Amino acid sequence: MFICEGMAVSAADATFAPFSFERRDPLPHDVDIAIQYCGVCHSDLHQARNEWGNTKYPCIPGHEIVGFVERVGAEVTKFKVGDKVGVGCIVNSCRTCDNCRRGLENYCLNGMTGTYNAPDKETGPGRWTFGGYSRRVVVNDEHVLRVPDNLDLAATAPLLCAGITTYSPLRHWKAGPGVKVGVVGLGGLGHMAVKIAHAMGADVSMITTSAGKAADARHLGADHVILSKDQEQMDKAAMSLDLIIDTVSAPHDINAYLRMLRTDGALVQVGLPIEPLPVKVRSLIYMRKTFAGSMIGGIPETQEMLDFCGEHNIVSDIELIRPDQIDMAYERMLKSDVKYRFVIDWAHA
Amino acid sequence: MFICEGMAVSAADATFAPFSFERRDPLPHDVDIAIQYCGVCHSDLHQARNEWGNTKYPCIPGHEIVGFVERVGAEVTKFKVGDKVGVGCIVNSCRTCDNCRRGLENYCLNGMTGTYNAPDKETGPGRWTFGGYSRRVVVNDEHVLRVPDNLDLAATAPLLCAGITTYSPLRHWKAGPGVKVGVVGLGGLGHMAVKIAHAMGADVSMITTSAGKAADARHLGADHVILSKDQEQMDKAAMSLDLIIDTVSAPHDINAYLRMLRTDGALVQVGLPIEPLPVKVRSLIYMRKTFAGSMIGGIPETQEMLDFCGEHNIVSDIELIRPDQIDMAYERMLKSDVKYRFVIDWAHA
Repeated sequence: MFICEGMAVSAADATFAPFSFERRDPLPHDVDIAIQYCGVCHSDLHQARNEWGNTKYPCIPGHEIVGFVERVGAEVTKFKVGDKVGVGCIVNSCRTCDNCRRGLENYCLNGMTGTYNAPDKETGPGRWTFGGYSRRVVVNDEHVLRVPDNLDLAATAPLLCAGITTYSPLRHWKAGPGVKVGVVGLGGLGHMAVKIAHAMGADVSMITTSAGKAADARHLGADHVILSKDQEQMDKAAMSLDLIIDTVSAPHDINAYLRMLRTDGALVQVGLPIEPLPVKVRSLIYMRKTFAGSMIGGIPETQEMLDFCGEHNIVSDIELIRPDQIDMAYERMLKSDVKYRFVIDWAHA
Repeated sequence: MFICEGMAVSAADATFAPFSFERRDPLPHDVDIAIQYCGVCHSDLHQARNEWGNTKYPCIPGHEIVGFVERVGAEVTKFKVGDKVGVGCIVNSCRTCDNCRRGLENYCLNGMTGTYNAPDKETGPGRWTFGGYSRRVVVNDEHVLRVPDNLDLAATAPLLCAGITTYSPLRHWKAGPGVKVGVVGLGGLGHMAVKIAHAMGADVSMITTSAGKAADARHLGADHVILSKDQEQMDKAAMSLDLIIDTVSAPHDINAYLRMLRTDGALVQVGLPIEPLPVKVRSLIYMRKTFAGSMIGGIPETQEMLDFCGEHNIVSDIELIRPDQIDMAYERMLKSDVKYRFVIDWAHA
């Protein structure tokens, strides 16, 4: 064990405070990473404030982690000290179930180990994982990703969650040249979806409630901008899209977006509204439409996404913060006042 | 024009009564069919009683039609007098849009012409289509199906709607050997879904609220029966199915069925509940599940389904009624008191 510093909340209504805790020394297959940057995801806020009702305190969120390898376990051959690496939402999985064997560790049938707030299977019962709002993290080598050298390290951090969460459904539902992709919501996830879909060669429509975001959306790679509050624009866009990536986690009228799909089109929810969304069956059956969901992505696909981003020079648009600014960042995030991801700077803290 | 006899309702709260009306004489590409049998679909009841708010009166429902060719237009080469034929939910389509050209006339982008209660494009504005609760029907030859000789004609009628409505999603979502298919609801649609999925080689689970239907379901071809009101059985069936065909048109908890799907599984709604179904996004994103809809099927696929049923000797389980028994049939249908489809006997009326 070694002592690690981080930023933790001690209760649902507490603010973040410095916190020292123990991390395991590397097991034979572990990689010990000196965290340089960690993105701030909306899920972190949900977890910190116990909005899903399952938070263990103290809680140290953070699953958009990049850094350098500090130490490796005796059996590690894939990584060496100094390597530039990343860790996303998954730090462990059973590696034996049908899904893990297909590279879908995110859907591990025996339960993947989340990067924070999950029972830590490596260290035994009673210990929970702590995330990247900390200076170090120790992760099984099969769940560590290689970060392309050409990408800005801080701006790469959000790829580990926002990047793969949008890349995976875009790949699975075959975004590419000739495919018309809509992206609902221009936030952390949405801005990555626009960049990635554009790089895949799709024709990209940004669907947003806010006229003020149009110029930004185009700058990020959107070919079209559709204002969802403008009924005329929505009517014109009916039956025009093959695939919609819906990043909104607030309640919203999903039927208005299903209407925008062509025959056999799919709307894939990657945001996670807490309340159920009422779906008009009529919206689905008339043109054999699909309403689906997708959650992050598997480890091989995450590496593929990082390599794709390296090749296309894609990173997140970020705003760097100090570790003592997390509470402020949450407040601004709740007002969508961030372009488009806060990243905690551990390198200079 | 010629005079045709049928059974019509004159208002939402009226009962069926004999009604004489004009049908067009065959145009060059028309087939005039002497209707022998017509199935009674739940949609007929919705339409007759104006439950979708768009009924034109007098209304003559019926879109599960089988009969013999009585006359053909000058240009018809596919059919000759005396042929055993069927007509389903579609009597016309634009034949030029992307969907029609792909054989998806059911999703005609210019609006398919329904067999009843639709503006009749062949006879011009102000005239509406009348369905198979009548002695004759005149239909464009590209929308007439050939009925296999070996099948009982009366019991074939329901294939034209209940058969294709379940066959199409079973094919599209690839039911077959090694695929675990669930069917929700054992009625007109459900009993066809079980028979067809079984004939396709799938492992079929009947999911029903009623323990009394278990023996029937097995007799129809179900390998397993799951009682949806038995939480223990539902828990055991979690994550066990690849594809669910949901035939229920009453409000129901779709999340309980989504839970039964495996990774990448699809639940396809073919029933049409009027109220929106609340979908927990969590039910979809955890294992990349799909909630989809499907509506009848295209003309080529309907012929394929009839040929498949001919080959596998599949027909509907029916109860024959006289034309003057339609109101009684509706009342019994509302109580699910039919195994599994009423068919109007015009041959002996």
